Amino acid sequence: MSRIAYVNGRFTRHREAAVHIEDRGYQFADAIYEVIAIRNDRFIDEEPHLDRLDRSLKEVRIAPPVARSSLKHILRETVRRNRVRDGIVYMQVSRGVARRDHAFPAHRDSSLVVTARSTAPKSAARAGGVSVVTAEDIRWKRCDIKTVGLLPNVLAKQKAVEAGAYEAWMVTPDGDVTECTSANAWIVTAGREVVTRPPTNAILNGITRRTVRAIAEREGYTVVERVFTLDEALAAIEAFLTSTTSQVMPVVQIDGRPVGAGRPGPLTAALQALYDAHEGMALAGRNGSGEA
Amino acid sequence: MSRIAYVNGRFTRHREAAVHIEDRGYQFADAIYEVIAIRNDRFIDEEPHLDRLDRSLKEVRIAPPVARSSLKHILRETVRRNRVRDGIVYMQVSRGVARRDHAFPAHRDSSLVVTARSTAPKSAARAGGVSVVTAEDIRWKRCDIKTVGLLPNVLAKQKAVEAGAYEAWMVTPDGDVTECTSANAWIVTAGREVVTRPPTNAILNGITRRTVRAIAEREGYTVVERVFTLDEALAAIEAFLTSTTSQVMPVVQIDGRPVGAGRPGPLTAALQALYDAHEGMALAGRNGSGEA
Repeated sequence: MSRIAYVNGRFTRHREAAVHIEDRGYQFADAIYEVIAIRNDRFIDEEPHLDRLDRSLKEVRIAPPVARSSLKHILRETVRRNRVRDGIVYMQVSRGVARRDHAFPAHRDSSLVVTARSTAPKSAARAGGVSVVTAEDIRWKRCDIKTVGLLPNVLAKQKAVEAGAYEAWMVTPDGDVTECTSANAWIVTAGREVVTRPPTNAILNGITRRTVRAIAEREGYTVVERVFTLDEALAAIEAFLTSTTSQVMPVVQIDGRPVGAGRPGPLTAALQALYDAHEGMALAGRNGSGEA
Repeated sequence: MSRIAYVNGRFTRHREAAVHIEDRGYQFADAIYEVIAIRNDRFIDEEPHLDRLDRSLKEVRIAPPVARSSLKHILRETVRRNRVRDGIVYMQVSRGVARRDHAFPAHRDSSLVVTARSTAPKSAARAGGVSVVTAEDIRWKRCDIKTVGLLPNVLAKQKAVEAGAYEAWMVTPDGDVTECTSANAWIVTAGREVVTRPPTNAILNGITRRTVRAIAEREGYTVVERVFTLDEALAAIEAFLTSTTSQVMPVVQIDGRPVGAGRPGPLTAALQALYDAHEGMALAGRNGSGEA
């Protein structure tokens, strides 16, 4: 099946989808993006993702390319044309095309690119857990803004792949864990506290992270937002990561050392099940449809 | 005149020059660039720029898209087709096109884009000096690699433009000056030391910076590579910045406060003249032509 992409006002064959070489996304990483999961034909946590898109755009003063209602229509149409029932929709907004100059262009004609694709479920990883490696966090100081300036994430992820690991946990020179290359990091302490880093400028405030936090609190778990160290993670009884595409993913090994018993722990499994239920139920409620 | 760009193997009209939406330069800032000045038909410090391109590519493990001899031919052809006698040639190498995934693609088919354009001489600024503002340096920890991940530079440059300034000097939380958004920063102390920051991972090791340093030392000036603070800059008797496009540019005001007498100083003027002579003489020697 030929894939279809949306580029600046029109749908085009994916293989021909192009942007100008002086699009500022290409020359300056002057662009913001979001990824929304599609499960069983439904958009998961769409409004929080679009709220975060708006926030990121505002932080770097890129004009929204279209109204939210239009964007939602474009997202749906891109998903429909690519026949995605389970997968992701990706949107990227740049500061548009202009003769190369660091300062903002005079116009406010942002570029909008949207793609969608089906993805396979990560059943084996979700059941058995994954390994992670650590990498020094060398990113900029505004990781709360979801920009395409992802080269440090790329380099850390590549390190993980070459080590046979699923993700990299990024660690500061002080030994603190910030987050993964495209997910948030969590540990469960011996005291059964569920710990994740507060959403400062040092990390992206993940939508799945927020949802899992709310679910865990609702279910009576003790969730603590605080900085935690790699040493604490290595001494944790459980660990996991959260993201749009990985959902709640157990972490069973860090740098070759087992976390807890070296297999997914019961608290992680419980949060995984609760999050899966959220993906079904929350949307069933929101969309007025009963099935999960 | 219709401008011409080189994109992945062919020359095309600039307004139609495009890259795929899944070029990793667009989605991950997974790309390296260089800018070389053309003065009076000649490439200034071409080999050091191409050496630095190779170094940057190696640091992030992007394969060179073509051999250096081919690249030099493409640069010359791009300059010729755009009839640039005085201006710049811009080259950008990305990790190529691949389905979006943080880790490196299996292929090593890098993308290469080259543009060239004429630029007007900065005579008034060079004669009268420029103002700069300061901005917090929020960039990543590998500023020695010349990547397109320039959004922090864009935001700082925009701050400068909105303040009516020419550039922004970036300052760490400790009060140290690192560099400008696209130039290196220099001061001349009351003791007549010419001071610029050492080329660590915190700054780009400018080609013009290196040339000016060598010239200054050759001429008997005391050049000291060390970290200097904003307070030292405000107490300096002269200040300037160096870059491919700005050459040696006097800085006469920082955050609204005059540097020294508030006009270009004699040492800066001397280095400016010596650098201008380098642009003529070094190339005259290299190209076997006598005129400067």
